[in-house]
Amino acid sequence: YEQIRLVFPGLVGMSQAVGVAIVVVTGVWLGHHHGGFAWDGSAHQFNVHPLCMVLGMVVLYGDAVLLYRVFPRESKRNLKILHGSIHLLALLVSIIGLVAVFNFHRVSGIPDLYSLHSWCGVLTVTLFLVQWLMGLGFFLFPGASSWLREWYLPLHAFFGLFLLAVSIATCLTGITEKLLFSIMETYSLRAPEGLLANSLALLLLLFGGLVGFIVTREEFRRPPQPEEEALSVHFTSLTPSSP
Amino acid sequence: YEQIRLVFPGLVGMSQAVGVAIVVVTGVWLGHHHGGFAWDGSAHQFNVHPLCMVLGMVVLYGDAVLLYRVFPRESKRNLKILHGSIHLLALLVSIIGLVAVFNFHRVSGIPDLYSLHSWCGVLTVTLFLVQWLMGLGFFLFPGASSWLREWYLPLHAFFGLFLLAVSIATCLTGITEKLLFSIMETYSLRAPEGLLANSLALLLLLFGGLVGFIVTREEFRRPPQPEEEALSVHFTSLTPSSP
Repeated sequence: YEQIRLVFPGLVGMSQAVGVAIVVVTGVWLGHHHGGFAWDGSAHQFNVHPLCMVLGMVVLYGDAVLLYRVFPRESKRNLKILHGSIHLLALLVSIIGLVAVFNFHRVSGIPDLYSLHSWCGVLTVTLFLVQWLMGLGFFLFPGASSWLREWYLPLHAFFGLFLLAVSIATCLTGITEKLLFSIMETYSLRAPEGLLANSLALLLLLFGGLVGFIVTREEFRRPPQPEEEALSVHFTSLTPSSP
Repeated sequence: YEQIRLVFPGLVGMSQAVGVAIVVVTGVWLGHHHGGFAWDGSAHQFNVHPLCMVLGMVVLYGDAVLLYRVFPRESKRNLKILHGSIHLLALLVSIIGLVAVFNFHRVSGIPDLYSLHSWCGVLTVTLFLVQWLMGLGFFLFPGASSWLREWYLPLHAFFGLFLLAVSIATCLTGITEKLLFSIMETYSLRAPEGLLANSLALLLLLFGGLVGFIVTREEFRRPPQPEEEALSVHFTSLTPSSP
């Protein structure tokens, strides 16, 4: 058990390094190979879309999920507020990313919402918004009974990870689309842009794997704080093997 | 608890219906829109690839994962043998799917292994093979100590679901590739083929979600059989909240 506990800081550190690498590689890809970022309806505005989506729907989203494991000594209420706040920031960044691409399409006369990437993206962001509102209603507003919270908690946790997985899959379809639209001819010659964007996708999968692993391992669960024991008698049934 | 237990057959039934729908829709897509299946180095041979991959790496793979929940009264040894056998079948079907596309590429002079889809696909099938061999070594050969089995079981379960997720993400990049290669012009006009293949991708995500949900809910876990209680004293620490 102690051995496994020692692995934890390494895994969290790796997840954060991969998260930073994702944003940097996305920035280099669009900055170096596609001329950088702007908000003028041009292809440079399109570039805002992938950067915002990986930052919002993957890196910030993943970090909000990790919070409960990374700060086990912080009070539950503070963690909930921080979790909800980072997810709100992730949502706002994602919405900027969606506005960037819809606005670029409108200016350029490109049709919306025909591709698999767009279907998955709109579905994911919509379900994320629903999930965020339900989390607010169940866990932060005082109205929900402890029975309801206990019933919803595992559903919230499952759909949270499921949406992260769908979000990363959506990024992979977006990377495939972008490469086939822009370097169809040279992609099969192993153009540097193709190798870079393929590697970005592998980093996204690695980040999802690390976040998923850290939050699903029983031994990394947050032990209940002494002051919470008295408050929720059923809490132990949700954290069955916490020490 | 009883209420949730009643949901179980519905979820399993839905997963199986979605699994059948995935294979049927893939068959209709490639049969109706791409001329069907053959093994002659032509585009009809390429069509064998997607059909084998969704059948092997998603549907059979997912069903092998579900086994432990669907037959809770079957002996553990029989379930392990069936789990390993269905996964072996999934591997063989997937390898046929890989041979189909590599052979088609060779005959047609198309380069291999440059796209994100191919990177993810080769990575997934390779890791699946490693996972299968490790499962065989740890759980079916008598050599592994109960301590080693107990240590490896949650890792096996986590990587099993992670690989299913990566496998489905790989299918989505493959669908995106195939559509952009074959109907780039009409995809944005919402050609029926595009709508059909997009829907196939949503079915794949739904299948992954259902399998993931069924196997991660504590209340669907297989209760230890009476004859196993005496054999493994540590088993309860792996199924902390089983009834």
